[in-house]
This record gives sequence, C-alpha cells and structure tokens, in this order.
Amino acid sequence: MKTIVGTLIVMLLPALALGEGRPVAPNGIPLIEGYRNWQVIAPSYRDDKGHIRLIFGNGTAIKAMKEGTRPFPDGTVMAKVAWTAVKHPKFPVATIPDRFVQVEFMVKDAAKYKATGGWGFARFVGENLKPYGRDAGFVQECFGCHTPVKGNDYVFTGFASVP
Amino acid sequence: MKTIVGTLIVMLLPALALGEGRPVAPNGIPLIEGYRNWQVIAPSYRDDKGHIRLIFGNGTAIKAMKEGTRPFPDGTVMAKVAWTAVKHPKFPVATIPDRFVQVEFMVKDAAKYKATGGWGFARFVGENLKPYGRDAGFVQECFGCHTPVKGNDYVFTGFASVP
Ligand code: HEC
Ligand code: HEC
Repeated sequence: MKTIVGTLIVMLLPALALGEGRPVAPNGIPLIEGYRNWQVIAPSYRDDKGHIRLIFGNGTAIKAMKEGTRPFPDGTVMAKVAWTAVKHPKFPVATIPDRFVQVEFMVKDAAKYKATGGWGFARFVGENLKPYGRDAGFVQECFGCHTPVKGNDYVFTGFASVP
Repeated sequence: MKTIVGTLIVMLLPALALGEGRPVAPNGIPLIEGYRNWQVIAPSYRDDKGHIRLIFGNGTAIKAMKEGTRPFPDGTVMAKVAWTAVKHPKFPVATIPDRFVQVEFMVKDAAKYKATGGWGFARFVGENLKPYGRDAGFVQECFGCHTPVKGNDYVFTGFASVP
C-alpha cells in the first residue's frame, strides 16, 4: 500500500511541479493565473466566429505597449480571452460577452522560444481549460498565423488609447 | 495691473477648484483621470454605431461586480469608452478599436444623486473631451435610457468572467 501511494506521488510530481495543479499546454506552458486582473490592451470582435474578446497584458506588456518598445522584452505576457457574443437582452443593438470560449497566451523569452519568434504560445479551451494541441507542434499553427505581423514582433493588437 | 491679474485669478478659481483644469460636465462632474488603468468589467460592440467599447470599474466597482452587490455602494465609478470600430489591416475578419469617440462615467452617491437612481452621469466627447450637455438636464437622457435595467441598479454591464 505504502509503495502504491509512493509510486502515485512520484508519478504525479512532474505535473504538479510544472503547473502546480493547473492545466499545462503540450509545450510545457502552464495556465497563467491572475490575468483577468491585468490591465486591458484592447477589445476585439470576430463576427465570423461570433466571438468578443479582450487582450490583457502583464505589467511588462503594458509598459512596452505604451512606450512602443519592439521587440517586446523578456517577461512580456499577453492573454487573449474569447467569449461567445450575444445581444444584450435589454438592449439588443449592443453585443456583449456570454460564455467563456478560451484563453490564449503569448509569453516572451527570446532565447527559450527562439524558433517561434521568441514567443511561447499556449491555449486553454472551455470551462475545463483543456490544453489545446496534440503535441508541442501545435505552436506552428499559432506562429504561422501571427507571421503577417512579424514587423510588429508578431503581435496584432495595439494599445487602445484615450486622450 | 495687479487688480486685473487678481480679478482673473478669482474668476478662474471655481473652474480650477472643481476640475483642477480638467473638463467639467454641466452637472459639475469633472473628467475622472486614470480610468484607463482600471480593471475592465467587459467589452461591448455596437454594429449600428460602428463602435467598440470597454467598460472599466474602479476598485469599489470591481469588488461589487465580483460579489454581486446591489445596489452598488457609494464610491462606485464606472467608465465606458467608445472607439470607432475598424477591420484589422492585416486580418480583416477581426474588428478592433481605431479613433477615440467618447468616455462616459457613472458615479454612485445615493444621497447626492437621489433624483437619478443614486448615479451621477457625465460624458466627454472627442479628442478635446468636450463636456456633453447644454445644462445639467442632460442627465435625463442618460437616466431614461438606463431605466430598463433599474432592477440591476441601472447598470447594463455584467462582469465578463473566466474559469
Ligand atoms: C487564424 C489566425 C490565428 C491563429 C491560428 C492564431 N492567432 Fe492569435 N491572433 C490572431 C489575430 C487576428 C489576433 C488579433 C486579435 C483578434 O483578432 O482577436 C490574435 C491575437 C492573439 C493574442 C493577443 C496578442 C496579439 O498578437 O494581438 C494572443 C495572446 C494570441 N493571439 C495567441 C494565440 C495562440 C496561443 C494561438 C495558437 C494556439 C494563436 N494565437 C493562433 C490570429 C490568429
Ligand atoms: C440609447 C440608450 C442609452 C443612453 C441615452 C445612454 N446609455 Fe449608457 N449604456 C447604454 C447601454 C446599452 C449600455 C451597455 C453597454 C453598451 O451597450 O455599450 C450602457 C452602459 C453605460 C455605462 C457602463 C455601465 C453600464 O450601465 O453598463 C456607463 C458608465 C454609461 N452607460 C453612461 C452613460 C451616460 C453618462 C449617458 C448620458 C450622457 C448614457 N450612458 C446614456 C445605453 C444608453
């Protein structure tokens, strides 16, 4: 019995060590907690998918956004959250978020993620935050789609500014 | 000369005292600074107007949103910012913010703003943040439109949550 418990603990250790119980993407990036309290870079809307989105940045990301620093410094993290878009029940011309769809991250580490422009990609899908991708190769899909904005360090979103 | 300068200072004092140089709405509410760094409550999209929006909350607002407190406590401030919505030049199915249109505030003070559900309303338009409204009566337009959500303390927007 003692041996079985011991074996189970040893088997679980890597997962716990990496993600501390959080879901982990196939390339080893765990879900980054607390992003919902970060400052927002901008909203976006996809009528083809019927999604409304927020792009958040950690402190390093917001500073780089405001100062126009490119490439983004190591330690930059951006999180993009998508919700299904619905009409407001009391004011139908307004489109608002409904159900959580997914959260995606871009984590900057120029050396570690050299093969994909210095960015580590991760996506977690649905209420259960299921890690996206069969294996670490899933990042090619992300990187491929972000290549048209290589000139902006692979980032689509700009800071939505106010006077 | 001394008298003229003195008279000018006395004339300018009320404006400075109220808004510290910031624009002031006809009902006396000055532009509230720093709201762009607040946490975001939710995005919204208006295809009839071609606007994309963010609704921000100060600390009191975010706490009340997360805990579901109604009516919102005194000191709650929400800011809604509208930008014109454009297609992303590198990815046209994504709709993103372009030019700043306006910022609107709702400030909770149950006693002070008793006549309008406990909320003080203010709107500032365009890059120059021109106060909206000919006189203090402009708030009837705001209050009227927010009355369908009286049951939610006159607030349309809910917190866009994540798992
Ligand atoms: C089909 C194209 C496409 C694919 C595939 C794609 N992205 Fe993006 N991504 C975009 C666009 C366009 C934006 C701009 C915001 C928007 O449209 O909502 C974006 C924005 C982002 C952002 C916010 C920072 C920025 O660049 O604006 C993150 C984070 C992100 N994507 C992560 C990912 C991850 C992780 C994957 C893969 C698991 C991925 N993306 C795959 C098109 C794509
Ligand atoms: C034509 C209807 C209408 C009028 C007039 C109106 N609002 Fe609103 N307001 C809305 C709707 C609908 C929302 C929900 C978010 C959205 O649609 O963008 C909202 C949201 C807001 C919010 C965010 C908090 C919330 O209730 O969701 C603020 C702040 C706000 N309005 C301020 C004002 C001010 C200030 C005025 C007047 C100067 C005003 N509104 C006039 C319809 C209106």
